[in-house]
Amino acid sequence: DNTWMSRHLGLMRWVVTALIGVGTGLVAVFIDVFVKYLSDLKYSTVSDSILVCKKDGCLVLSLLILLGFGAGFVLIASILVAIEPIAAGSGIPEIKCYLNGIKVPHVVRLKTLLSKAIGVLFSVSGGLFVGKEGPMIHSGAIVGAGIPQFQSITFRKLNFNFPYFRTDRDKRDFVSGGAAAGVAAAFGAPIGGVLFSLEEGSSFWNQMLTWRTFFCAMCATFTLNFLLSGLDYQQWGALDQPGLIDFGIFDRCEKGKTTNCDPWTALDLLVFIVMGFVGGLLGALFNFLNTKLTIYRMKHLGSRRKFVRVLEAILIVMVTASIAFGAAMTLGQCKKLPSSNAQEADNRFVPWSSNVSSGNGTEVTFFCQDGYYNDMATLFFNSQEIAIKELFHEAGKFSLQSLGIFFGLFFLLACWTYGAMVPSGLFVPCLLCGAAYGRIVGNILNEYTGFANISNIYSGTFALIGAASFLGGVVRMTISLTVILIESTNEISYGLPIMVTLMVAKWSGDLFNKGLYDIHVELKGLPLLGWEPPRKMDRLRAHQIMETRLTYIYPHTRVRSLISILRTTQHHAYPVVTENLHTSAAAAAAPPNSADTAVASKNILYKRESTLSRSDEQRQRSSSVRSVEMLRVHRMSRLAADYNLARNRHDSAENTEDWDRVSLRTDPSGYPSWLADVMSLDDNEDTRDDCRPLTFHGVILRSHLVMLLKKKVCYAENTSSLCQEELSYGELTEDYPRFQDIHDIDINAINHNKIMDVTSFMNPCPYTVSPETPVSKVFNLFRTMGLRHLMVINSCGEVLGIITRHNLTEEFLEEKLEFYGDAPHHCRNSDADSTATPSH
Amino acid sequence: DNTWMSRHLGLMRWVVTALIGVGTGLVAVFIDVFVKYLSDLKYSTVSDSILVCKKDGCLVLSLLILLGFGAGFVLIASILVAIEPIAAGSGIPEIKCYLNGIKVPHVVRLKTLLSKAIGVLFSVSGGLFVGKEGPMIHSGAIVGAGIPQFQSITFRKLNFNFPYFRTDRDKRDFVSGGAAAGVAAAFGAPIGGVLFSLEEGSSFWNQMLTWRTFFCAMCATFTLNFLLSGLDYQQWGALDQPGLIDFGIFDRCEKGKTTNCDPWTALDLLVFIVMGFVGGLLGALFNFLNTKLTIYRMKHLGSRRKFVRVLEAILIVMVTASIAFGAAMTLGQCKKLPSSNAQEADNRFVPWSSNVSSGNGTEVTFFCQDGYYNDMATLFFNSQEIAIKELFHEAGKFSLQSLGIFFGLFFLLACWTYGAMVPSGLFVPCLLCGAAYGRIVGNILNEYTGFANISNIYSGTFALIGAASFLGGVVRMTISLTVILIESTNEISYGLPIMVTLMVAKWSGDLFNKGLYDIHVELKGLPLLGWEPPRKMDRLRAHQIMETRLTYIYPHTRVRSLISILRTTQHHAYPVVTENLHTSAAAAAAPPNSADTAVASKNILYKRESTLSRSDEQRQRSSSVRSVEMLRVHRMSRLAADYNLARNRHDSAENTEDWDRVSLRTDPSGYPSWLADVMSLDDNEDTRDDCRPLTFHGVILRSHLVMLLKKKVCYAENTSSLCQEELSYGELTEDYPRFQDIHDIDINAINHNKIMDVTSFMNPCPYTVSPETPVSKVFNLFRTMGLRHLMVINSCGEVLGIITRHNLTEEFLEEKLEFYGDAPHHCRNSDADSTATPSH
Repeated sequence: DNTWMSRHLGLMRWVVTALIGVGTGLVAVFIDVFVKYLSDLKYSTVSDSILVCKKDGCLVLSLLILLGFGAGFVLIASILVAIEPIAAGSGIPEIKCYLNGIKVPHVVRLKTLLSKAIGVLFSVSGGLFVGKEGPMIHSGAIVGAGIPQFQSITFRKLNFNFPYFRTDRDKRDFVSGGAAAGVAAAFGAPIGGVLFSLEEGSSFWNQMLTWRTFFCAMCATFTLNFLLSGLDYQQWGALDQPGLIDFGIFDRCEKGKTTNCDPWTALDLLVFIVMGFVGGLLGALFNFLNTKLTIYRMKHLGSRRKFVRVLEAILIVMVTASIAFGAAMTLGQCKKLPSSNAQEADNRFVPWSSNVSSGNGTEVTFFCQDGYYNDMATLFFNSQEIAIKELFHEAGKFSLQSLGIFFGLFFLLACWTYGAMVPSGLFVPCLLCGAAYGRIVGNILNEYTGFANISNIYSGTFALIGAASFLGGVVRMTISLTVILIESTNEISYGLPIMVTLMVAKWSGDLFNKGLYDIHVELKGLPLLGWEPPRKMDRLRAHQIMETRLTYIYPHTRVRSLISILRTTQHHAYPVVTENLHTSAAAAAAPPNSADTAVASKNILYKRESTLSRSDEQRQRSSSVRSVEMLRVHRMSRLAADYNLARNRHDSAENTEDWDRVSLRTDPSGYPSWLADVMSLDDNEDTRDDCRPLTFHGVILRSHLVMLLKKKVCYAENTSSLCQEELSYGELTEDYPRFQDIHDIDINAINHNKIMDVTSFMNPCPYTVSPETPVSKVFNLFRTMGLRHLMVINSCGEVLGIITRHNLTEEFLEEKLEFYGDAPHHCRNSDADSTATPSH
Repeated sequence: DNTWMSRHLGLMRWVVTALIGVGTGLVAVFIDVFVKYLSDLKYSTVSDSILVCKKDGCLVLSLLILLGFGAGFVLIASILVAIEPIAAGSGIPEIKCYLNGIKVPHVVRLKTLLSKAIGVLFSVSGGLFVGKEGPMIHSGAIVGAGIPQFQSITFRKLNFNFPYFRTDRDKRDFVSGGAAAGVAAAFGAPIGGVLFSLEEGSSFWNQMLTWRTFFCAMCATFTLNFLLSGLDYQQWGALDQPGLIDFGIFDRCEKGKTTNCDPWTALDLLVFIVMGFVGGLLGALFNFLNTKLTIYRMKHLGSRRKFVRVLEAILIVMVTASIAFGAAMTLGQCKKLPSSNAQEADNRFVPWSSNVSSGNGTEVTFFCQDGYYNDMATLFFNSQEIAIKELFHEAGKFSLQSLGIFFGLFFLLACWTYGAMVPSGLFVPCLLCGAAYGRIVGNILNEYTGFANISNIYSGTFALIGAASFLGGVVRMTISLTVILIESTNEISYGLPIMVTLMVAKWSGDLFNKGLYDIHVELKGLPLLGWEPPRKMDRLRAHQIMETRLTYIYPHTRVRSLISILRTTQHHAYPVVTENLHTSAAAAAAPPNSADTAVASKNILYKRESTLSRSDEQRQRSSSVRSVEMLRVHRMSRLAADYNLARNRHDSAENTEDWDRVSLRTDPSGYPSWLADVMSLDDNEDTRDDCRPLTFHGVILRSHLVMLLKKKVCYAENTSSLCQEELSYGELTEDYPRFQDIHDIDINAINHNKIMDVTSFMNPCPYTVSPETPVSKVFNLFRTMGLRHLMVINSCGEVLGIITRHNLTEEFLEEKLEFYGDAPHHCRNSDADSTATPSH
């Protein structure tokens, strides 16, 4: 039965994965088709007006129509974002955080998907310099999170009874699959998608998960390919459109026919390295400007003043359209259409066309005479994907001057746009901007040095490398970006130059700032954990960064205390501990062979300890209630519900002498004092009174405790815990993913004097570390195992503190390092006195 | 200074990585060039003889010359393997084990590289049905292991003073880079190479390591590409040959010109699924036959009878050549050369040619009249890479009958060959065999059903899918194989069919047996850990699989005891423990604020405990000395050098009563007894006497202990451990990778009565688990963190046992499951009595 169930689940997992892939593909098709439709609508209307106005001289009207379309579309986009603010931007920072293990509210909701997917249609077709790829990845992630639930918070009626995969881990796995599918659909790069989700998310190489993710990405590519081939070319069943963005075919000419036939030669690598360096610098500049702008926005256009931000978005699109129009009018050059396109020139009587021609690109005539086209307008008024293709493939089409102006304007406008209140991807604008930069380099080399014997493909290579270097300089991704670009070009031999360029660009950019996504994550204050801890942090130890003020519970706790703990703290998990000295000794003194007696003695024990009045509890706990101030260093002073009373009781008992002797036995630091060559000399006496040794037994989640209370799982004082109701794991987690908190349940329904035995619901074997563990090791454990909390346990099994994600953020570590760093670090066990953290 | 050093090391790491890539590329070029040269030599000689003999009718002589060449070449190959037996086979199982964390002797030695790289030249050009790709991956791994050392064991004079990267971890990282470079060079698949080393080795996604590995693979591809383009086409600087094996260009014809232009359509996926299923079955059959053969070889042609195995290899090549010759003579069909090749037919007057023509293939005339070729001979007497290309691209070239006969013969011969005493890859033979199978399916569909409107490319698609399915059925790799095949075809749109085929093939093959590499690993008895623990093992807990007979040492141990422990045990690591009851209590009773007193009391303590005579020690330890019998379940009975004496001393002391009381305090199971609802009822009394609680403090490696002894790091009884010499980590590991054992050092040079303080040399914070941890969690920790040993620590900080790789092998777990499995598993803490393992 169990095997059948697990097989069934395994199969379901694959089916759901396939569904996610198909779903993501459908969303991508939806976005692509409607972007095309809306852009066509806009450009054809404007074209018609120009045709009319050419004679009447009412060009201003055409411009106004263009601006009106832009403003209207962007208004829709930004209103959608105003409804669901997390839909703004590319969504990649949010997905990164989610895969990193941070719960960002609303990030994977259906409402967000709708805002994002519909919003990006309008922001792209409105004419903003934004991409649809980032939002597509975010959409994929939401599809990944949503489909396995078969229910929705936004639409409560969407609720099929499908109670599987209701854990954070499963959800994260599916989200990572969805993100990979998003990349696969956006770039036609399934392998790149898998590597993207590996790079950003799961630091643990899980073979089956990776394989499923790959399958998911393949399904998305297939769906997109199948549908777009059918819709665009009317060839159902053929598969001609692997991704939304493709870089066209880098034709390799036949050997011997032309002189310079290779896409690149070994010598060019040197040029690529220089280009990568400069691209990294440009990217760093982009990031710098955008950071300043974002900080300004956060200060002055806070999230509350949505109206202002909507206006800003509209302003951006109007400025963008005006500048593009003006620049193309005044600075663009009319060039002759290449003869190979002559047969297509017939249907070029409309000044603009955003249809994909069967060749690699589409030139825009834009007031040039017949047979000529405006090079600047070709860049500005094509869709960005087509402009990239033009830059990658059509040699000699663009004058150096036009390229330079285009690059400058685009750079600034794209920088202004990213962070506005619209869904906005970053990939394609960066690629286009970088491609212009690469073409500039290629043209300069060709014209002024004669270094490069420019052929079509050769100049395209420079554009490709330029695009890679600038994008790399902005986002600073490594492996996945390389593979995405290789797959998009569909030419493996570009692998090495792309890789080298990205390496150099990342390196030179990192001299100045971080990647743009990371900057935005930081500005939002999310505790993202990087791949590796900063190297200088190696000097810190676990006990130096742990949170020592713990709120803990006992294995058998009175319901009253539990409720009080839950109401006054906000922790997500509580260690389950026992005081390991007298209490256990007393209990163990009972004949251990008799189960009944043991149970009885245990109950008695708790009876004694639990008779604490509510007000006492509140008073005692008040000092431990903290939520935000986690960053401060406290002297170790543990506090728990039933703690002080138990202590007083014992102190007043006749075995005081015994207590003193045994408490001497174990140094609170966890290291038996006789082991350390150098003893801790400061305030040993003070702390001893404060910190009783607490043996650690397990961890229980807040949500589980609340659920247990809700289900009234407890037993009466005079019975044994064997009478306590059993609760399956499924029942315990049935509210996933939105658990009720203690304030939502009716606490009067449960008898506050009953006792709850949590031992069968806690995690009895969480990962733990010793206080001397270097921070890098803690960090690795967190990243690799996807932990949210980690107990620090000394060698006697006593809990000393807890490490959460907040204790591993760079800011926190740096603060700690400042605090401890300059003190000489004894290599021996001199810092074994982990509790002796000086107060401040 | 420290920052500078770490930056310097970081840079060195990149430089070394690049060197490894280049080195691997050079080895690949060497192999490729010489294989071509030797094959040319062989075939041209035989051709000449045929030209002569055609008239004289001395065909037998030609056959004899062919056989002679084959026998001679294979003799050389197998003699090289006889010298270094680990060079036999493909080397992938060995590399897999190495990356998995198992030390296989000789696997990454320079001697092995020479045997392998030279041997594979001769085994391939001798005419055996073996590939050079597996050996190339192995060679890359050896280059990766060797270059960072800048020294060699085989040639001791090769020793530059380069003392970095002398840890197992660094070495493993470089080996994984080298293996990736090997894949990249062999298949022109750098991404596939990275995924290969991720899949087989590092289960931990380390961003920087992956990025470096990728760079290494790129360097290898570049080197190979650069050199081969220069050597083969005389176009230095151009880059036309990305990998040794490439599948040719799957041309996509222009839309509209031909009717069926797509490489595949959505409907074909169904056919591919069936093909994958059958391919998996064929692969399973191949594995089954090869397993039987390997077992037979192990039984009857053990490794000692090298002479017989050399003869076997020669027999194989002679049979292979004769069968191929005979089959081509009698069963091959003469077919007309396609007109497109007419211009090349001029220089076809030699019956055989193994040169790569500029097209996709090379036909072999083989006694057919001019303008005709023999289809069977084209398959048998081309190099396998070319034969694969022929099958992938030239439609209608091969008759169904020839394909069928070829498939059958090749299948059996390749199966016989793999495992013979020559270096022999498996990839290319499987691809060729599978391609024939795919062509058969394509031909049948074409001829009998009319389902497939076969064009050139379409029939090539079937061959490709057939190749993928058969290879997938044999090796059962998933992600990396998919990516390797996608990269080799250089056509992203084949991604989905290849992936689906491989999935189905793996699934259908897994119904019967494992992948061939895993089978060979198992037959060699290496404890490889898979990706995931078998699901049914979830019922086992850490305490059920741990080894409970520990050999441990104290923080301060007398040298005599240490030597004795090292001489009588073979463990690689020893836990450092203290008895946590009286001893520590007594020590702690000293005023803890005075460092001097603490040290003094500690020394006294050890003085008392260490006065054990040598013979006593031996006698006591004799029962614990075990090496191979790890698989047996023992009752927990810990034993250590100084243990019993200390106990006796204490028992006889006046504090016996105290001892009894406190030993009651803690149940030996680690779970305070009052916590368990159901007490352990059996032999609680017996075990208590036997198992004293030992507080765990750290782990020290055997190699470090030996080095400490060699360096005489210890202090005299009447001094403090502060007088003990310091030793840096570099000094501690200077003998890496071949540490001396205790038997190699002069133990008389050290005063046996001195005491060694190991606290500063041990690892004070190794990963530990609680006894209740499920085996799957233990397994994940092992795999993810690359552990070799893991301590099981109860909640009181006492060591209960140790888990090593052997305790996680499938056989061991199955034995344990049989032992514990059917017993009802109490979900509560009823099995907390981890020590109470029934005796047998």
